[in-house]
Amino acid sequence: MDAKVNLAEKFELLVGPYAPRIIGFVNDYKLQIVKVKGEFVWHKHDDTDDFFLVVKGCLTIQLRDRDVVLNAGELFVVPKGVEHCPWADEETLVLLIEPRGTRNTGDTESPLTATELEI
Amino acid sequence: MDAKVNLAEKFELLVGPYAPRIIGFVNDYKLQIVKVKGEFVWHKHDDTDDFFLVVKGCLTIQLRDRDVVLNAGELFVVPKGVEHCPWADEETLVLLIEPRGTRNTGDTESPLTATELEI
Repeated sequence: MDAKVNLAEKFELLVGPYAPRIIGFVNDYKLQIVKVKGEFVWHKHDDTDDFFLVVKGCLTIQLRDRDVVLNAGELFVVPKGVEHCPWADEETLVLLIEPRGTRNTGDTESPLTATELEI
Repeated sequence: MDAKVNLAEKFELLVGPYAPRIIGFVNDYKLQIVKVKGEFVWHKHDDTDDFFLVVKGCLTIQLRDRDVVLNAGELFVVPKGVEHCPWADEETLVLLIEPRGTRNTGDTESPLTATELEI
């Protein structure tokens, strides 16, 4: 990435919910954007924390013991090994940061499991 | 970090420009916020890329061959080894992501060199 990234412009290029796309890298970490609408799948990442920053909308990260509700300008890091399931009522735009090779559905096989694609 | 972070609330706690504070971690990376006003110092990080996301205001990242101007909602990653010098005319709020132990002034000794402090 040798140019700046305008998040709003990049979000316009996304094809639909739960189809994350890579917009850059920081060392061996990928910067991804994703549209969230509806419920994702319960999963966990045994080897990495999971960073969520809401850019627009409202994201609920369900944990087994509570919900974390994020509005625009709010972030949360799901610790490694902690089961979580994101959902949003209305279309919500999220910036994700995690190591390259991290599968979006973690330890869960799902039709929502995505390939790593740049945008 | 077991609670969400509201960036605007955290920025209110900062004491002044170029005094970064850690608001969380993703594995061995620190999430930092900083107020920028005026010019920083020219420096580089030989071992890491350097992530900047502007939350409010306008940040210019001077490179030796060009300027990268970031408004709110725009991000840029300075590649490792590339000299840069941030500056802002008006107070600007920035989210930074880099490995723990990364010195804010990189290879440059400066009065602006900061200790890693959480907020």
